[in-house]
Parts: sequence; C-alpha cells; structure tokens
Amino acid sequence: MKSTDKCDRVIELARRRGFFWPSYEIYGGVGGLLDFGPLGVAVKRKIENKWRKFFLKEHDFLEIETPIITPEKVFQASGHIEHFKDPMVECTKCKRKYRVDHLLAETGISNTESMNLIELDNQIKKKEVYCQDCGGQLSKSNYVQTMFKTTIGPFTDNIGYGRPEAAQGIFVNFKRLHEVMRDKFPIGIGQIGHALRNEISPRQGPVRLREFTIMEFEFFFDPTDPSCPRLSEIEQTEITLVPFTSRKPVLITVKDALTKKLILMEWMGYFMALSQQFISELGIPPEKQRFLEKSPSERAHYSDQTFDQEILLDRWGWTEVSGHAYRTSYDISRHIEISGVDMSVFKPHLKPIEIQEKKLIPNANALRRDFGDDTNKILQLLKSEDLTRVQKQINEKGSFHLGKHTVTKEHFEIKTSSKKETGRRIIPHVIEPSFGVDRLVYAAMEFAYSTKEDRVILSLPKNIVPFDAVILPLMTKMELVEETKKIYTNLQKSGLETYYDETGSIGKRYARSDEIAVPLAITIDYQTLDDGTVTIRDRDTWKQQRVNKDELVALIKNYIP
Amino acid sequence: MKSTDKCDRVIELARRRGFFWPSYEIYGGVGGLLDFGPLGVAVKRKIENKWRKFFLKEHDFLEIETPIITPEKVFQASGHIEHFKDPMVECTKCKRKYRVDHLLAETGISNTESMNLIELDNQIKKKEVYCQDCGGQLSKSNYVQTMFKTTIGPFTDNIGYGRPEAAQGIFVNFKRLHEVMRDKFPIGIGQIGHALRNEISPRQGPVRLREFTIMEFEFFFDPTDPSCPRLSEIEQTEITLVPFTSRKPVLITVKDALTKKLILMEWMGYFMALSQQFISELGIPPEKQRFLEKSPSERAHYSDQTFDQEILLDRWGWTEVSGHAYRTSYDISRHIEISGVDMSVFKPHLKPIEIQEKKLIPNANALRRDFGDDTNKILQLLKSEDLTRVQKQINEKGSFHLGKHTVTKEHFEIKTSSKKETGRRIIPHVIEPSFGVDRLVYAAMEFAYSTKEDRVILSLPKNIVPFDAVILPLMTKMELVEETKKIYTNLQKSGLETYYDETGSIGKRYARSDEIAVPLAITIDYQTLDDGTVTIRDRDTWKQQRVNKDELVALIKNYIP
Repeated sequence: MKSTDKCDRVIELARRRGFFWPSYEIYGGVGGLLDFGPLGVAVKRKIENKWRKFFLKEHDFLEIETPIITPEKVFQASGHIEHFKDPMVECTKCKRKYRVDHLLAETGISNTESMNLIELDNQIKKKEVYCQDCGGQLSKSNYVQTMFKTTIGPFTDNIGYGRPEAAQGIFVNFKRLHEVMRDKFPIGIGQIGHALRNEISPRQGPVRLREFTIMEFEFFFDPTDPSCPRLSEIEQTEITLVPFTSRKPVLITVKDALTKKLILMEWMGYFMALSQQFISELGIPPEKQRFLEKSPSERAHYSDQTFDQEILLDRWGWTEVSGHAYRTSYDISRHIEISGVDMSVFKPHLKPIEIQEKKLIPNANALRRDFGDDTNKILQLLKSEDLTRVQKQINEKGSFHLGKHTVTKEHFEIKTSSKKETGRRIIPHVIEPSFGVDRLVYAAMEFAYSTKEDRVILSLPKNIVPFDAVILPLMTKMELVEETKKIYTNLQKSGLETYYDETGSIGKRYARSDEIAVPLAITIDYQTLDDGTVTIRDRDTWKQQRVNKDELVALIKNYIP
Repeated sequence: MKSTDKCDRVIELARRRGFFWPSYEIYGGVGGLLDFGPLGVAVKRKIENKWRKFFLKEHDFLEIETPIITPEKVFQASGHIEHFKDPMVECTKCKRKYRVDHLLAETGISNTESMNLIELDNQIKKKEVYCQDCGGQLSKSNYVQTMFKTTIGPFTDNIGYGRPEAAQGIFVNFKRLHEVMRDKFPIGIGQIGHALRNEISPRQGPVRLREFTIMEFEFFFDPTDPSCPRLSEIEQTEITLVPFTSRKPVLITVKDALTKKLILMEWMGYFMALSQQFISELGIPPEKQRFLEKSPSERAHYSDQTFDQEILLDRWGWTEVSGHAYRTSYDISRHIEISGVDMSVFKPHLKPIEIQEKKLIPNANALRRDFGDDTNKILQLLKSEDLTRVQKQINEKGSFHLGKHTVTKEHFEIKTSSKKETGRRIIPHVIEPSFGVDRLVYAAMEFAYSTKEDRVILSLPKNIVPFDAVILPLMTKMELVEETKKIYTNLQKSGLETYYDETGSIGKRYARSDEIAVPLAITIDYQTLDDGTVTIRDRDTWKQQRVNKDELVALIKNYIP
C-alpha cells in the first residue's frame, strides 16, 4: 500500500457516501473549507458529545457559547493582533501566495518556526525554491495576519475579526461566570464552535482548514495551589513525550514526567493523560500518539509550556489533534489591564490568618517645618517605599533618603498592628486543552479504514458511528417489506439510529453498510414470519446469528455503548 | 405590570443566573452579539435537538454542516449581493448610522419595506426625524449591503462573506446529496449553525442579532406533483393567517387556507401547522402566534410566497420566530446557470410512457439550391421552432416564414416516431421553513416567566429545561451531605441532568431552582437515613411528596418527557 493511497481512499469514501467533501465544489471549491454530509455530521456530533461527557460533565465544567465575530480590542488585549501571523512569500510572476514554513518543510527544512524573516529568505535562496506553479522568483518573506478581518456594522471603521480560537470568548466572560457560579474555584469553562483561520494556502484536505470546529476548555486555578486532586487516577498512565530539549521520544508515566519537571503542572499532566484516553477511544491507539513539546520560540505568545498531541497519519505523518497550553495568567492579566475590569478571584483562607501590617503616621508639624511645600510630595514617595526597609534604615542610620530629601524619625512614626486576613485576591492561571473536531472525524475514519476480500470496512468505534443498525428485508416481497418496516419503526421509536435499505442484493447491502461503519445489519426473511427471529450480522467479524425480534432493542442498546 | 418591565426582568434573570448576556461586556459590549452561559447553552441545545427530532428525524430529512465563510460567487448566484441590503442614513454631525425603516417605525410609520429611497427620505423630512443622539441632520438614504465582508486568504482580492442564512450551503450541495442518497426525492435537507447579518444598528437585545444560530431546512419537491401525503394529519389544525391583501387576521384551518389559495402549496401548509405545534411545545400557545403574509414588495427576492410566523412578545409586540418561504426553483436555477452544473433531477415515470417525437429531416439539395450559404443558418433557426407549429403552417399555408426566408415542404420532411420515455428531468422547487434559535430561547423564557409570592418561577416546558432536578441536603450535616451526594451521583450516572446545592436555607435553595426552571427539587433529610424516602417538590405547584430513593430515576425519567 502506497503511503498516499489510504488518505485518497478515505477521502473518496467520505465524498461518495456523504461524510465530507470540499465546500462549494460546483464552483470549483475553496481551499480550506469542508462540508459535512449526513454521515459526517452524525460522526462529528457524536465526537463532540463524547468530548462534552469526557471532559466537561465528568468534572462539572461549564459550557458556554459566544460569537465568532470579535471586536478588535479583544485581540489587541489577547496579543493576537501582534502575534497571530505567518510568514508569506508571493510569486513575483503569477502572484500565487505561499506560507514560507510550509514551502520549506516540503524541501525538508523543519524547525522554521524559530527562524526570523531574514533566515527564512536565506533558506529559500540556499535551497533554490521557486514558485511551484510557474517557476517564478519568490518575493521576500513578510508576516501577514491570518485572521479573517471584517467590520462590525456596514461602512464603519469598527474592525472585527473571526475568532481563531474559542478561548477569548471564555476569558472575557471569566468574571461573570465566576459570579454566576457563586465563586466556584478552580473552575473549567469550555466551548464548542466554529473558529476561523485565514490560512495563506491550505493544502491538506480535511487536516488544515480555514474554518473548523474547535472544542476547548480553559481550566482556571490558583497558581499557589496547583495540585490536582484527581492525579492519582491517571499518574501511572504511560505517554510518549518528546521534550523540546532532546527532541527524542520517551515513554514515561505522567507521574515521572511531573517529577522530572518534563510537564510543569499537575493539571496539565492530568488532562494530557485524559486526552490520550479520549483519542484512543476514537480508535487511535496510544502507540500512534505522542506529545511533542514546543520550544520557547515555537510556542504561542501566551504560553509557558505547550504540548501538541500528535497522531501518526498515513499521508501527513505526525499531525496535531490537540494542543495543551499552560497559558499562565497571560490572558486574564491582559484583559484586566486593557478593560480596566478587575477579574481577580477572592480566595478565602481555610480560616482567617493574622497578619502584621505596618502603617505610616506622619508628624505634619515637623514635616511642614522642615520641608514646607514639598511635604505632600515626600509623603507620596514614602508610601511607595517598603516600610520595613524604611524603619530598618532609620533605626540603623538615623535617617532615610528620599531623592534629594532626608527624613528622620522626627518626621513620622511607623506603627505595627495585627489584622485578620480572610483570604487573598489572586489572578487565576489557566491550562487549556484544545481539540479540532473536523480533523478527528478524518483521523478516526483513517484508522477505522481497512479492506477485507476487496471490500471496505469502516470499523469506527461503536459509539461514534452514524447509524447503530441497518434493517433489511431479504428480498423485496411485500410480506417481508411490511414486517421489516414494522421492526424498523419500532427500533426508531426506541431512540436507536437505524435506517432501512431494500435496494440490491443482500451482499451489496451488507457491503454498503460495512463501508459506512454500521455495526449491525438485521435481516428479515421468511423464517421471521414463522418464528419471529431475525438474523443479526456483525460488521467486523461478518458473523451472523438468529435472535428473537423482541430482543432487538435491548440487544442493540447493550452492544452500542 | 408595565409593558417594558417583563422584558427587563427576563433579561436581568438571564444575566444574573447565566442564561445569556451581551457579548464583550467588559469592553462595553458590542451591539447585536450575545453570549450564552451554561444554562442558556443547555436550553438552546435542547431546542435545537427538539427541532431536529420534530422536523428532520420525523421526516427522514438529512442534516448537513457547511462553512459560514462563503465565496462571493455563491452570493452573486443567489442574488444576495444585489438584494441583501437595508436602507441606511447617517447623522451628518455625529456620524451615527441608522436603519431607515427602523427609525421610521419608531415614529409610527410602518410598511416602509415597499418604499424606495426617495419615499423614505420624504418621510424623514415630513416627520422631522433627526439624529436620536445629537439631534443632527440626517443624510440622504442609501442602500448598504448587510453581510459581513472579508477576504478568503490574507491579502487577496478573493472576496468572501459570512453567510446570512444556512440555505446556500444546502443549495450548492443539492446535486451531491441527491447522489449520496441514491436519488431519493422529494427530499428535505436541514442545517443548524451560526449565521451573520451585519445589521446597521441592532437595538433589540436578544431579538435582533448580528450573529445568531439558524435552524432551517430546504424541502425539494416536484412542482408538477406538489401534493403532501401527510397533509391529512394536520389539515384540521387552525392557524391565524394575516393575508397581505386584507392585512386582517383570520382563524382558519390549513385545509381551508389551501382551498382558498391563501397558502399556495400543500407542503407549506403542512410545515406551518407543524411549526405552530413546535412553538406551542416551547410554551408559547397558538393564540399568541400568527402567520403574517409578506406582500410582494416585502418578500425576499427569491420567494413567491412568504409567511412570517410571529409571536406576541411583551415589549416588542409581534415578533418573527420563523419564516416560511416558497423559494420556487429560484436558487437551484441560478446555481445551475452560474456554475454550469446540471442540478436537475431525473424523475422516473411509474412505468415508461410512449411519446410521439417529431424529427426534422432536411432536404440538403433543395435547401442549398434555394438558399446557398444561408442553408446552415436556416437549419439552426428551424431547430429552435416548435415543429408541430411548423408542420401545421406548412400544411395549411404551404410555407413557413423564418426571418426573411420562406421555406416549403420541398425543403424538409417532418417525421413522427414513437419513443419510450422512462422519466423526465425536473428542476426541483423548494419550500423553506427557517427558525432563529437565540430568539426562541428568549421567547420561551418570557412566556415561562411569572411570579408567585414575590418569587420568580420560570415554568419552561420540562423538555427544554437546563436541569431535570436539583438534589439538596436539608442541612449541611455530614451524614446528610454524604447520603445526598450518593443519590446525586446515582442520578448523574443514569444520564439525568442534575446538580447538587447545599448553600443557604432550604427555602432559598428552592427559590434559586424555581427561577432557573428546575422542575423537581429532591431533598434528603434525617428520615431518608431511617426509611430511604426523600421529598420531591414540584416547581410549579410547590407540592411535596415523599418517595423511595430507589424509585427516583424512573420517576424523574417518567416526569421529564
């Protein structure tokens, strides 16, 4: 099997049977946009719901939904206006545009994320890279902002962007959600929705898209209390890490990775282990997964540590399916700074603690006598000093210098009093696991794709299949069709997702259902009319057995998790 | 109760408890954008799933998902570039922009949808309308395009728009979906997703949004066979119609409305009756609903008949919740024309029918003799004529005129042969019911909102509530908390949506759950530890009864449809 074949065949299947295909194909298609057909929507929705259950419901995290259209100010605060950009070159002849790092990657030069524009241009020259279409000379590299830009309101200068991540809709709402949840903390807030990235020249089919569905949550926690109480549940999980320092994969338990400080935060290790399990349950085994650490120059501007969870795809090699970023307090701090809204969290102590507080009591007469009009200025300067240090110097040297002035113990008194502190305000830190759904639909299909006796079988895990079962009359005789439709209607009413198919030979119909991952085929024949039994056939083993039609609902529900 | 009060109170509740609030509020908000919090997302998703079940699954319609970003060509074909626009004026002093029809509506002038720009300007002059902010003079009216405009790819001239409806993603895919479904016809194809309308100055909170979630389906059918086989199920349903001719509401059965041609298409009547039921099940009774027919000048460019389904809201009066448009073959024809892709449907006859086909057999010698170089031109002209008519004229008058030439029976022969026709190619016609979800979340809440003994109760229908039940320990004694958490965990595992609450008096906790529509409150007290019974309290009646804790799952599942 050639390395490119499997991808082509999965994409062919996806298009022919209605999983997904390039958008606007009657107009020649638009790069980086994908349509999901009925089967694709079903798989996509099941993956989304699985994620909800796996990450949000399991931890009592919240889910919100915020707009794609985002005012410029938000991305000024978040740093996206400054940092969300890619290096681009243009063919000086035919004007085709390329993303420089992707172009260089094709000539075998990697690690370009850490290169600056001059270094990129040097590589282009050195490797003699020309336009892939017309062979023309390429322009110098330039950074271009890769968000979709628009205006909010027609004919205004009120700039807006399509969000490249769902995260900012969460950050700007942190204060309200914290209030709504009556100060619950730590807290996770998630969102599933479309996100837009205005890629320069997307070329990787379902893998690199300009519009995609993102599933991400932000986990807000106290940086002074970063321990994860559920760590013990997963600490023995082995994951493959590729630290940026060594660039060598190492199979290691989460516990050891934390001890050796390969993963900085317990919560991060916890979510990474869960993510490995989540991706495994989509049919992609742990040995085809790894966590690649990004180097400081490769990381997003907001991150102190980032791992890309990657899976090994047939054509595209190691491909990111989720990102795990330790975003620190970056985003919340920036939004506090730019919006002026306090989004710190009051964290009560278990019981109030006594703290010593120093207070300055000025001697107004002495100050005014010695410093006249400068008195106020001196008092202001004193306030910004560390009073412990001031007191120490005055005790030791008898005086303290404030710019050109010198003050002594005559001018003020420093009193210490004790005070009860019930808690502290902290700026929460954030860990963000972020998944792209579209890519997962493709990846699950690639891993599920196999052939048997020249026929395609799509062995998707049973809880992400588009249909639970297909219901078939052995032949299109009226009495069989009637009985089959009765059984079909019963199964539909029970909440199962099934469909009815009567066209073509039974073998053809089995084949059609195998390639769209239907786990069970139920055939109604003349024996059914006699004794009420039907044949159930398994997608993967092709084994058949007869069961009573009345047991079908329970049997299928038991089989489909 | 003042008319504006209820809206304010619903919005206050929505914000305080986390249903929805204006987006980007820490930056002062952006008009027309709304965030859904955890409770709002839950209600919204349940309405979406209800719609899926009610319209799509019930009729075996398909669901697809296509991008928001749409290339310009699609909207050129669909007519949106030309027609999707609103009249705008700008304050000449402060530059604030207004939508003219909305501005005039506030001064009591309605029916502006049929006025042209000059008439609008005359009304502004006549009613002495000035800027509402600064009192400045308003500019002349102008049409502005109200789609969000961007480029696909950074720094390109490849224009794209945010889709204002999900429909075009369905139309451009009709051919592929028809193939995927092995020629199933008639067929309904639906989509739920975000849509964008770049409103000039949205001012109606959750009711008029720049970004919203649309649920719509296109029903493709044969215009020569427009009967709806399921009409009998709903034909006796009474609906309130407001025909554009009379502008007077009339309560009429769907059957009568069809007979009197107030509704043009059976399928349209069928979907309208279903929509009335759907909206009723959200808690908005039929007597607060009506179907307002749009006049020809008010209808969208693609429509031959349109009804807005409206509900009576407290502050905003009659407000559209769904649109029912008979889009004819407009969109499909336009996409065929512009893309050049044949999207007609082959409709087989029940059995092949014999048809008489006329064929022209030219007499080359006679033609060349009489017409020389014009022969080919004459043959071409003849081909575009109705051969039956040509034959008739020649038989009657002996000759037929083709521009300046006259032909006779010497020049050709018309032969009739019989042929079997197995079917015909037709361009499908389309009926489109289209709903906005965000508005429905608000409307359901407004209709569910009431007060009792000064406390708010949100009596949402039980199948669109954010939580099925709340689980409460009577007091925060350890033994009660432990037992309560056990019961809570059990309920969660059974798939029910519940939450645990221990803060505050039991009365306060009941009140908190009533105002977020939780149908059942389950209280654990000391008797629970003795005899295993708990108290169940009903949201609407406040009645309580004791039941065994082991019956809870079945009991709640039975109570929540």
